[in-house]
Amino acid sequence: MDTLKDKVTIFAPASVSNVGPGFDILGFALEGMGDTITLCTREDSAYIIEAIGADLPTDPERNVATVAIRSFCKEIGYKGGFTIRIEKNFTPGSGLGSSASSAVGAVFAANELLQTGYSKEELISYALDGEELASGNRHADNVAPCMLGGFVAVKSCDPFDGFQVAYPEDLKVLIIFPDIVIKTAEARSILPTEVSMSDAIQQAANMAGLINGLTTANYIMVKNSLKDVLAQPYRKKLIQAYDEVERLCEDSESIGFNISGSGPSMFSFFKKEQDLTQLRESIKELYSDRGINCRLHESVINGRGAEIVND
Amino acid sequence: MDTLKDKVTIFAPASVSNVGPGFDILGFALEGMGDTITLCTREDSAYIIEAIGADLPTDPERNVATVAIRSFCKEIGYKGGFTIRIEKNFTPGSGLGSSASSAVGAVFAANELLQTGYSKEELISYALDGEELASGNRHADNVAPCMLGGFVAVKSCDPFDGFQVAYPEDLKVLIIFPDIVIKTAEARSILPTEVSMSDAIQQAANMAGLINGLTTANYIMVKNSLKDVLAQPYRKKLIQAYDEVERLCEDSESIGFNISGSGPSMFSFFKKEQDLTQLRESIKELYSDRGINCRLHESVINGRGAEIVND
Repeated sequence: MDTLKDKVTIFAPASVSNVGPGFDILGFALEGMGDTITLCTREDSAYIIEAIGADLPTDPERNVATVAIRSFCKEIGYKGGFTIRIEKNFTPGSGLGSSASSAVGAVFAANELLQTGYSKEELISYALDGEELASGNRHADNVAPCMLGGFVAVKSCDPFDGFQVAYPEDLKVLIIFPDIVIKTAEARSILPTEVSMSDAIQQAANMAGLINGLTTANYIMVKNSLKDVLAQPYRKKLIQAYDEVERLCEDSESIGFNISGSGPSMFSFFKKEQDLTQLRESIKELYSDRGINCRLHESVINGRGAEIVND
Repeated sequence: MDTLKDKVTIFAPASVSNVGPGFDILGFALEGMGDTITLCTREDSAYIIEAIGADLPTDPERNVATVAIRSFCKEIGYKGGFTIRIEKNFTPGSGLGSSASSAVGAVFAANELLQTGYSKEELISYALDGEELASGNRHADNVAPCMLGGFVAVKSCDPFDGFQVAYPEDLKVLIIFPDIVIKTAEARSILPTEVSMSDAIQQAANMAGLINGLTTANYIMVKNSLKDVLAQPYRKKLIQAYDEVERLCEDSESIGFNISGSGPSMFSFFKKEQDLTQLRESIKELYSDRGINCRLHESVINGRGAEIVND
């Protein structure tokens, strides 16, 4: 029998959800952005939280990471405590799955530390208990790609039913994150509860095109299908200069553009070899002219999801 | 330069549209069932229609085949006439794309006869002019698979934008056609014009699963995704014994079951090697007990679409 570890460090990537017609159901993981979480067992039963890079709640009842761990430990009957160090290198509220990264990372780390042997798929529902605290709902389109990596389509959450979608190797993504505050609850409340039958049909058609385009590496199909008719028309109004940013990406041969999560971040696909220096400068200038700071992140898709960090 | 032909015979397959979550947007072509159409040029400008196997309108303004040909000939500026012989080996109004077969076959034959050189994709809009006469709308989810073969997803009709979806080679389909009359207009009028946001999202999720399942030959995913939440819950009420037939197919290891087109036909996927003799007998008996005749058709997917018949 293996000796129990007393410390583990993991990385859980940021993620883009609501990928075009995949509103509430399709997300993908990002390379080079996410939570680094170190989890240690304790002699007592306390949960001690240390946050770096963001002002996170230190009350274990209000922190998504510890809520997720507690849900998992309740299931497996573990009554011990933990010290958890969450190093966040991106901003909560950006629309890049910050709470999912913390919840997934925490549960993944606990499973590793306690050597419980649950599969990543099995861990998703506990991560969702954390995610639910932050976002108020149980959508897994950030949690699932953060856990599994790549593109993940979610068919249902309880129990988790979803699948990874193949994608072209040379796909990269530009994340545009203007310094605008959008609350997930607000982004959700502006959506209608009823939609027209024709919009529902068009969304399904766009989804067919997006999945087929990704799996066959047909970039024209990806671009033409990356359209969300249910949420984006409402939510884009919350993001200043949305149309202008889209146009700049278009001019740089974007392979599809849309809102990341509930915003304010946006994402645009490109081919890996494309030089985006000029585009990045243009976008920064666009927001700078409006007195808004804007961060940019360029990366390939993270195909691995949550993983142990080698010291 | 080639000599113009004065006669051509083509086959245009029957098709299943509204494939689960592909309501209005996804269809596939059937092997061994469809229209055989012989088209001849005439010295005069008349359109003479001969119908075999079904009672079709002989007025060229009211026959989908000649309406489609006229639309095409108007485009290319051809003012001559035709004799058209339509041999229909399946029943109009069955939910198997009878009007699409005639419209596609006619336009395909005219393009061949006049050696116009249009691509199949280009011919689709003229076929839709014929289809529109019969069904009252311009959905291409019968026309496109009938023309192109295989599974075709339709993103828009004018201009046509759609694509073929890969599918497992050993997929076969059982068509169940009870002798019940359902008018397309009635099947459409019972549908709501507004749907809930959550149903619209579920439909897109099911579509993601169906496309991914077909392209990766994942039968469990196909089966779990072949669910239409927008139209099927309403339309199945028009089909007597729908639930019982579904159960019989389930008991025979169906890989998904749903309504074909707007009914009354139903379809169920199976693996090619499966023996469906017992299932077919059970279904026939089920309807026989209710005093309803029921026809069954078992075939693989037709991957070729409209084609010239070798004499």
